[in-house]
Amino acid sequence: MENIIEKIDLEGLIEARDFNTLREATRNWPAGNLADLMEPLSAEKEAVVFRLLSREQAADVFAYLSLERQEELLKAMAREEVAGILNAMSPDDRTSLLEELPANVIQQMLNLLSSEERTVASQLLGYDEDSIGRLMTPDFVRIRPHWTIAQALDHIRRYGKDSETMSMVYVIDENNKLIDDLRIRHILLAPPETPVSDLMDSRYISLKATDHRESAVEVFKDADLVALPVTDMDNFLIGIVTVDDILDVAEQEATEDIQKMGGSEALDEPYMKIAISKMVQKRATWLIILFLSEMLTATAMGRFEDEIAKAVVLSIFVPLVISSGGNSGSQASTLIIRAMALGEVKLRDWWLVMKREILSGLSLGSILGTIGFIRISTWHYLFNSYGEHWFLLAVTVGIALVGIVLWGSLAGSMLPFFLRRIGLDPATSSAPFVATLVDVSGLIIYFSVAGFILHGTLL
Amino acid sequence: MENIIEKIDLEGLIEARDFNTLREATRNWPAGNLADLMEPLSAEKEAVVFRLLSREQAADVFAYLSLERQEELLKAMAREEVAGILNAMSPDDRTSLLEELPANVIQQMLNLLSSEERTVASQLLGYDEDSIGRLMTPDFVRIRPHWTIAQALDHIRRYGKDSETMSMVYVIDENNKLIDDLRIRHILLAPPETPVSDLMDSRYISLKATDHRESAVEVFKDADLVALPVTDMDNFLIGIVTVDDILDVAEQEATEDIQKMGGSEALDEPYMKIAISKMVQKRATWLIILFLSEMLTATAMGRFEDEIAKAVVLSIFVPLVISSGGNSGSQASTLIIRAMALGEVKLRDWWLVMKREILSGLSLGSILGTIGFIRISTWHYLFNSYGEHWFLLAVTVGIALVGIVLWGSLAGSMLPFFLRRIGLDPATSSAPFVATLVDVSGLIIYFSVAGFILHGTLL
Repeated sequence: MENIIEKIDLEGLIEARDFNTLREATRNWPAGNLADLMEPLSAEKEAVVFRLLSREQAADVFAYLSLERQEELLKAMAREEVAGILNAMSPDDRTSLLEELPANVIQQMLNLLSSEERTVASQLLGYDEDSIGRLMTPDFVRIRPHWTIAQALDHIRRYGKDSETMSMVYVIDENNKLIDDLRIRHILLAPPETPVSDLMDSRYISLKATDHRESAVEVFKDADLVALPVTDMDNFLIGIVTVDDILDVAEQEATEDIQKMGGSEALDEPYMKIAISKMVQKRATWLIILFLSEMLTATAMGRFEDEIAKAVVLSIFVPLVISSGGNSGSQASTLIIRAMALGEVKLRDWWLVMKREILSGLSLGSILGTIGFIRISTWHYLFNSYGEHWFLLAVTVGIALVGIVLWGSLAGSMLPFFLRRIGLDPATSSAPFVATLVDVSGLIIYFSVAGFILHGTLL
Repeated sequence: MENIIEKIDLEGLIEARDFNTLREATRNWPAGNLADLMEPLSAEKEAVVFRLLSREQAADVFAYLSLERQEELLKAMAREEVAGILNAMSPDDRTSLLEELPANVIQQMLNLLSSEERTVASQLLGYDEDSIGRLMTPDFVRIRPHWTIAQALDHIRRYGKDSETMSMVYVIDENNKLIDDLRIRHILLAPPETPVSDLMDSRYISLKATDHRESAVEVFKDADLVALPVTDMDNFLIGIVTVDDILDVAEQEATEDIQKMGGSEALDEPYMKIAISKMVQKRATWLIILFLSEMLTATAMGRFEDEIAKAVVLSIFVPLVISSGGNSGSQASTLIIRAMALGEVKLRDWWLVMKREILSGLSLGSILGTIGFIRISTWHYLFNSYGEHWFLLAVTVGIALVGIVLWGSLAGSMLPFFLRRIGLDPATSSAPFVATLVDVSGLIIYFSVAGFILHGTLL
């Protein structure tokens, strides 16, 4: 074993940013050997190697280190150089190489570091930027089930000063696993000599550090609590999240959805502060995609060029007819996206939604179709605008509107389901995206109806 | 005085729903006389008269009543009949006749009523449906500045059981005016014999019951507290609002904005639960308005009928060109609406926004214009699609796109400012609304550019 270890050039692998080989090379080594091997490295490189160890290895190696070296290692994790080295990883490697740190390391690390250092270190925790792990704070009160209420209150008085919330305290077993949460009110109202375990019901709601932060919004709304405990994958208590942070999350998630629904990438910065070049870039991407898709309308219109040449009057109603499909599609997609974000509509509800949208689309289409028919008839009587075949033209526009609004409602409502099904964000089915989609198909519906009804007269 | 009072037929005025006369008739009467006058009425009618008194009168009359009659009166305020009678008022009358109730009445009323009764009664509190007054709970802990910490803790133990939160307690003076808020942690950590006043810094943030609930979201985000006190117009403490309720508010407000931005009225009910007829109605209103506005495109296209007849190829690019304006307008309006809702952009920032949008619009327009130009040139070389004047056509489409995208960005970004300026909700400037607006003007820009460039060739 000793021989193999000496052959590995850890320092060189780090400098070459060859993390895969490094991880492969250190796999299955005993903790003691690893700790020895890491000793001659600088604190920064030691932190890099440590971060690349598997979860179990990291826990063992950490336990093997002296308190002094533990602290040195944790402090190094908050240094920009270490973050810089590990950030050189591709996102794929990051997911496969950076496992969740062991609970004891996370806890000590969060407690040791200042909140600025924590921001740097949080990139290395193995938690996604949008995960609950990034929101948690280590400042909360832990008590033991065998303590008395008086002991618990004494503990709170001594260690509670920095706690984010005093509303909740958390009961943990000897392994730091979460076993219950207690409202401070129950502790305050209980006789001092009662054991903590008497107040426990072992029912609690907790969040997983690796979960998406959006899921925390729903849990908080249902739980009616000001703070929730966060555990790692093995149910070790590693932090808490307070509801005021979730308020920010809810707003940010709504902002991202709204911006996407408006047909732009999420800006991720306040409108007044983002550099114009950056904003143009975020807006241009979608605008170009939409423009390229909308080019299909030119192709579609090109195919109907003969019809238009014969009956120019048909082209007059093109914007009116296709925009109605876009508008009804925008409505439908917006309603569904928001209902999905709020958890009111699930993926399996697609058939129920489709039934609702068929009814709504037919109703709305009939209303607009009738108005369109009346508009053309009225203009005929008032201005004689549309020639001898005005009636057939009015029927064409009316029927096309029913079909297009129905189609718009269906396309707009089903697109978010489709996007979610294939793993994309439903909010991507923005109003402009749906409108573009429906524009092309709307043209085909319109000219097909026209071909059918006006054949032998205008066409 | 006695004579005048006897001439007034309070009962008849209530039955005739003549609230203005009733209020006029009772104006300036002494509290004692009013209380006597109300005695023979049924409890329901007494409640109606009481609710129509001015704030000062109501406070005086209430103090004049025996405890028994006070309770009877407050209980009656929660009855559906009373709510029904007063709801017969027009919204205008409601604002002018139903002043905020005096703090002592509100407090007793909220404490006396069950939460179901409170829902009925809340309609009569004089607080708008969207106001903070509708969110507040009367269950919180009040302490006095001259108490010791031990007394305060004893009080919390005895009365804190039903409190919505234990994180904060509120210090009030002898008139029930709010003078400070204290974190429970400071009380728990202080020596028991300290007077409460030693912990006070007299700095606190409070909400006004009459304010719009949306404003509470911003205050909570800045304040970093789990609960905030609510006062009436005279700074009497009447309730608290907790952050978990605000989480719901933030979500509801975002939902309303999103639905409006999608070109529909806010549904106010979950998508899967709202009756289809009701949903169709909420969606039809805007769809019809948009359809009627979009009819202007038919008028505009009609005016260019001759040009289209001469150059059918122009009509082929109509959907492409005008939709680009709609898309850029949707983007811009969405970004501005959200920035306004988050307080990032204020009304006075319109000029800064306009400058940003001129730059963004020109950049985005140039990008799309270039792509459009390349598309037409390419199709010319590949398929010879557009005849001998393809180059001028490509220039026309390219230049029209720059103008239309610029105009779309400007119109989309300025419309929310305009709507807010005239007192409407900026979220009304939905993506479909902006698209419709820009469609009509986009046609005019397109055919004007075409007329200028193609004059003497195609036109």
